[in-house]
Amino acid sequence: MLQPWKTLEREHLFSAGPIREIAREAVQLPDGRVVPDYYTAAMGDYTVVYAVTRRGTVLVIRQYKHGPRRICLTFPGGHVSDGETPAIAVERELLEETGYRAGRLTFLGSFVANANQGCNTAHLFRADDCSYERPAVPGDLEEMELVEMDPADVLTTARFAEMAVLSYVTLALLANHAGTTR
Amino acid sequence: MLQPWKTLEREHLFSAGPIREIAREAVQLPDGRVVPDYYTAAMGDYTVVYAVTRRGTVLVIRQYKHGPRRICLTFPGGHVSDGETPAIAVERELLEETGYRAGRLTFLGSFVANANQGCNTAHLFRADDCSYERPAVPGDLEEMELVEMDPADVLTTARFAEMAVLSYVTLALLANHAGTTR
Repeated sequence: MLQPWKTLEREHLFSAGPIREIAREAVQLPDGRVVPDYYTAAMGDYTVVYAVTRRGTVLVIRQYKHGPRRICLTFPGGHVSDGETPAIAVERELLEETGYRAGRLTFLGSFVANANQGCNTAHLFRADDCSYERPAVPGDLEEMELVEMDPADVLTTARFAEMAVLSYVTLALLANHAGTTR
Repeated sequence: MLQPWKTLEREHLFSAGPIREIAREAVQLPDGRVVPDYYTAAMGDYTVVYAVTRRGTVLVIRQYKHGPRRICLTFPGGHVSDGETPAIAVERELLEETGYRAGRLTFLGSFVANANQGCNTAHLFRADDCSYERPAVPGDLEEMELVEMDPADVLTTARFAEMAVLSYVTLALLANHAGTTR
C-alpha cells in the first residue's frame, strides 16, 4: 500500500519577488526513514484559458517569455490574486489581455508544475462564445500581439514548439480532448 | 515586431539541493526600459516517457509525489545527468524504474515548466515495443508501484486528475496526439 510522506518540520530559507518561498522540510517516508533536507519551492498560482470566439477562432497571444527566453505562442491568463477564485481570475485576465468576455467557462483541471518541488499550480480553462467587449489593457512588461487562429492550426507539432511551456501545451491539448469539454 | 529581452546583469542569490540557482537579472525590454530585479529559478532538467509494451499496455507508475503532496499516476523518467543526452537519460530511467528496454524511441518535444521564471525543461518521449529485460531498481526515496494500463484507460479526466503534474498530462496527451508520433 502506497502511503504519503509526512512533513515533520519546515524551515523558510528564501523569498524574493514572485518566488514566494524556498523551504527546507524534514519529511518522514512511509518506512520510517527521515529525510532532513527536502527542498520545496512555492511561486504564485496562475490560470490559462483556451478562449474560442463566437466566430470559432482561438485567441492566442504572441509574446516574449523570459522562462523559455524566446517569443512564444501563449494563451491568455495570469496570476490568481488574493481573494480571487481561479474562475474569476481567468475571466479578468481574458478581458484585460484580449478585450473579450467569456460566454461559457469550462474548468479543465489544476496541475502542479513540478512533481518534486511543487512550484505552483496552473488552473486550466476553456472559454466558449467569447465576445469582444473593449480594448485590451496589457500588463506593464507585456508587449503582446493578439492573434486569432483557426483551431486546426493550433494543434500541430510546430505550434507546440512555439508554445514552449508545459501549461500552454497541456491547455491546447486538453481543451480539444474529447470528453473533457462540453 | 516582437523583440526578445536582453539580460544586462545576473546575480546569483541562492542554491540548495535540486534548486540549482535563484538569480536576479537586470533585463532590458524592447522599448529600452530596464527592469532591475527580474527573478529566475533553475532546477535540473528531466525526462518522462510514455512507454508502450509489446503487449500494447502502457507502463505507468503510482507513487507519492511531494510536489502535489499526493499519490499520483506518473510515468517513468527522471533527471538528466551531466554528460547524458535526454534520449540516453530516458532509456536509463525506463530500465531502472520498470525493467523494460525501449524498442523504438520517439522524441515528442521539450517544454519549460514556468513561462516567467523558467525552472526546468521536461523532455518528453514515447517508447514503443518495450520489452522486459530485468527487475526494476527503484530509486532511494521512491516507493513505487508499476502498473500496466490499457491505453484507452489513460486518457480520461479522472486519470488526468491522478497525474496531478503538468508534464505527465502533457506527455499522455502528446503521445496520443495524431501526427506527433509514428
